[in-house]
Amino acid sequence: MASYLVTGTSRGLGLAMVAHLANSSESDVGVIFAAARSQTPDLQSLVKKSSGRVVYIDMDTTNQVNVDNAVNAVEKRLGDQGLDYLINNAGVGGFAPGWTENLTDLNEEFNVNVSGTHIVTTLFLPLLRKGQAKKIMNIGSTMGSLALAEMFSIFPLPAYKVSKAALNALTIQWAQALSGEGFVVTSINPGTVKSAMGGGKVADLTLEQGATGILEAIVKGGPEKNGKFSMITVPGWENAAGLHRYDGSFMQW
Amino acid sequence: MASYLVTGTSRGLGLAMVAHLANSSESDVGVIFAAARSQTPDLQSLVKKSSGRVVYIDMDTTNQVNVDNAVNAVEKRLGDQGLDYLINNAGVGGFAPGWTENLTDLNEEFNVNVSGTHIVTTLFLPLLRKGQAKKIMNIGSTMGSLALAEMFSIFPLPAYKVSKAALNALTIQWAQALSGEGFVVTSINPGTVKSAMGGGKVADLTLEQGATGILEAIVKGGPEKNGKFSMITVPGWENAAGLHRYDGSFMQW
Repeated sequence: MASYLVTGTSRGLGLAMVAHLANSSESDVGVIFAAARSQTPDLQSLVKKSSGRVVYIDMDTTNQVNVDNAVNAVEKRLGDQGLDYLINNAGVGGFAPGWTENLTDLNEEFNVNVSGTHIVTTLFLPLLRKGQAKKIMNIGSTMGSLALAEMFSIFPLPAYKVSKAALNALTIQWAQALSGEGFVVTSINPGTVKSAMGGGKVADLTLEQGATGILEAIVKGGPEKNGKFSMITVPGWENAAGLHRYDGSFMQW
Repeated sequence: MASYLVTGTSRGLGLAMVAHLANSSESDVGVIFAAARSQTPDLQSLVKKSSGRVVYIDMDTTNQVNVDNAVNAVEKRLGDQGLDYLINNAGVGGFAPGWTENLTDLNEEFNVNVSGTHIVTTLFLPLLRKGQAKKIMNIGSTMGSLALAEMFSIFPLPAYKVSKAALNALTIQWAQALSGEGFVVTSINPGTVKSAMGGGKVADLTLEQGATGILEAIVKGGPEKNGKFSMITVPGWENAAGLHRYDGSFMQW
């Protein structure tokens, strides 16, 4: 049975991923580690109902000591088993009404979205190496695509865009570093999801659709996805137009 | 006469740019502000020989207060004139023999290469708005290209690669923010130059060739270059193969 660690699970896509896994009837889903900086009522309720399948892990991804403690907690629960799937979902990003000229949170968004992902990946690597699946997935964004930037120029998210472009670069670095060991390290684009951070009412997908798409992508993605940036696949949306087409294809950098 | 501010001029490409401008016989070259964290003997000698054409500006690009002071010093020298050309050349990046798994300087390289560029651009914007040329150029790198990353996988520079991808993203943000005011904000790739940071003996270009290419690119680049990432043009290298072709063409993100 496969073990999962998802970061940023207090709400939104992270919480939806944990819920999807917790309710999964697939026999292959084992223990699910739900990491967050704090246990929201929704997450607490999920943990309670799961009869031990979902384990809450206290984790501030930007804090090395804290992540070290989280590694110890996960290791204790796994025993001799390794960790199979790591989904680096924790991230920040809000509208910056002052735009680029008044932008002061570049370092902060980079620290959470990129360095936090790097710290978690680095410190969980020994457990991931002991795992069978050897899959690491980082949550990218169309906002992080340089080639598509013109299309998104109306969205005032400069620090978020910069951090997500940098995260794609980091994904490539890890993919290159670990491909020789059979790892698959990818960046996934959940598109526009009705999440706390995301597009609200105008978004294409429900949280459940987004979460399912990410989880299917990490489980099914083989070496052809290593170091790549892909759209999720969502039934019913495979033939839609432009960026509403959720067909699993590669995204432009 | 046009005024120039170049950051990171204590050595390498930055110093070579200042030297090229200082020795220029073109009547359009006015005062040259050479910014650096410290005045090396080479830079000091350039300033001395220039009879006032080259002005040393003490500047740690990552320190807002320090950059504020630099803005005041530049403004005092310019009087009623604005600043015409800003070249954000200051940057760090060294080989990381421990590779991605032992990478601990992500935040540091981002802070210098991306946030430093952002701080300088932000704080010099009032002077640039008063200038005639309205050109800002950030020094990119092939190492920051996501599309070309596979080709450069043998070079152990993970933090540098991530920071230069992020810098391209920042260039786009500034280009979008300022295009309505007639600015041209671009990212330039000097290729492999025999600089302190760069390729050493195997590099294609001399410092003088790289510096000249960058300066020609910022002076000649029009709106078609706004928000783009381009190779420099170097006479004699326009028809070389692959990444040795210095023909001013757009780079892949």
